[in-house]
Amino acid sequence: MSSASSNQYYKVGVLLFPGADILDFAGPIEALSHVSHNRNTSNPDRMFDITTIACSAKIRAANSLTIHADITVSEALDCISDFHILLVPGGPTSVITPLIDANGPELELIRKFAALPPAAGSGTRILFSVCTGALLLGAAAVLAGINVTTHHSALDVLRDICARSNPPGGPSTTVVHKRYLDGGLLKDGGVRVITAGGVSSGLDAACYLVSQLATGDMASFVARVMEYDWCELKE
Amino acid sequence: MSSASSNQYYKVGVLLFPGADILDFAGPIEALSHVSHNRNTSNPDRMFDITTIACSAKIRAANSLTIHADITVSEALDCISDFHILLVPGGPTSVITPLIDANGPELELIRKFAALPPAAGSGTRILFSVCTGALLLGAAAVLAGINVTTHHSALDVLRDICARSNPPGGPSTTVVHKRYLDGGLLKDGGVRVITAGGVSSGLDAACYLVSQLATGDMASFVARVMEYDWCELKE
Repeated sequence: MSSASSNQYYKVGVLLFPGADILDFAGPIEALSHVSHNRNTSNPDRMFDITTIACSAKIRAANSLTIHADITVSEALDCISDFHILLVPGGPTSVITPLIDANGPELELIRKFAALPPAAGSGTRILFSVCTGALLLGAAAVLAGINVTTHHSALDVLRDICARSNPPGGPSTTVVHKRYLDGGLLKDGGVRVITAGGVSSGLDAACYLVSQLATGDMASFVARVMEYDWCELKE
Repeated sequence: MSSASSNQYYKVGVLLFPGADILDFAGPIEALSHVSHNRNTSNPDRMFDITTIACSAKIRAANSLTIHADITVSEALDCISDFHILLVPGGPTSVITPLIDANGPELELIRKFAALPPAAGSGTRILFSVCTGALLLGAAAVLAGINVTTHHSALDVLRDICARSNPPGGPSTTVVHKRYLDGGLLKDGGVRVITAGGVSSGLDAACYLVSQLATGDMASFVARVMEYDWCELKE
């Protein structure tokens, strides 16, 4: 992944749905919200611009927190090429399975993002799932030929979904148990896939993302602000 | 803290305000939302019932996530004795200082909760701050005579606030640098104060809370579901 220049900005879409796991999206949003070009916490020049996306204006996450989405999935589909990063959280099986069975706008958004060419300028496009969000990526048939991870309890489920959803005769998906994983570029070369394991590992993957798009020093700064003991994977 | 029976339920109020740090509240909500009497993730019998509270219906947290509050602070003031736990997140100085200077409904809510008698039944009342949320507790003058912590960058600020706000001639507040801290009961004996350090440490304090109100086994279960390496403090 190319390290960007210091004046680079990134537009992050966060796909939400009723029952989404809170920390899956709140963790990465937290980490990215601390990244600024000027490191001024009172008046930050933020590197990441966050937009929440959902089918309805209000969604209830984990039956505990009501989020007001910034734009609808339909609106996001119309301007998907504006986004550099698409974050896909997970949730319990009772939430994820109906989304997969419906094969609705959420999967369409993932598919459309995954098919984009590199972004103008930075070239950066990242499809970033946390926890069972990877099941939605698998069901959208965008994971062929790459290495991915998910929540420890959903590894076999993800293997099954990918085996059923990937194009027949094409490359398969390798599902491994890791804290997070940079799976590299999809076959068309426009979009990189980063998958995180369960829930809190989205924080680690977000710090990794910061280390790649800003600097390792900035990732350490963000971890320090969050008082988070970042699990930095060495390949 | 007394360990409750298995059929105990707790009502948790989460105080929100524009600019609140996302993980400060999302972390504990995440942890508490996984605690259920039946451990059935598809149809959980949840032990903690979460209600978000803010002065306005919609608040923008960390300029990145819009939360729709369940009730207003004014409504919460009218039913404050229904709550067993009041969670107070923090935010950057630019957010917390104006709240302190205004001495408005948010501080009034904290003061009113801190003055409550033990809850009927379980007896449990817990005032739980994360990160610089402790500054709001200090400014509300409810921390006299106990040990507390906050974000590592705000320890001296909290000392100053407590020195200025605590009743003259009374006991002082001891501010220490810890991941989280169970400060024990306030002098009237109705409310226990738990303070967490910066941002992600709210997850550790929430797991501690679960170990106290449910069981250590349940706290370990929650940490495992979140794939979170819970920092369990040994006193």
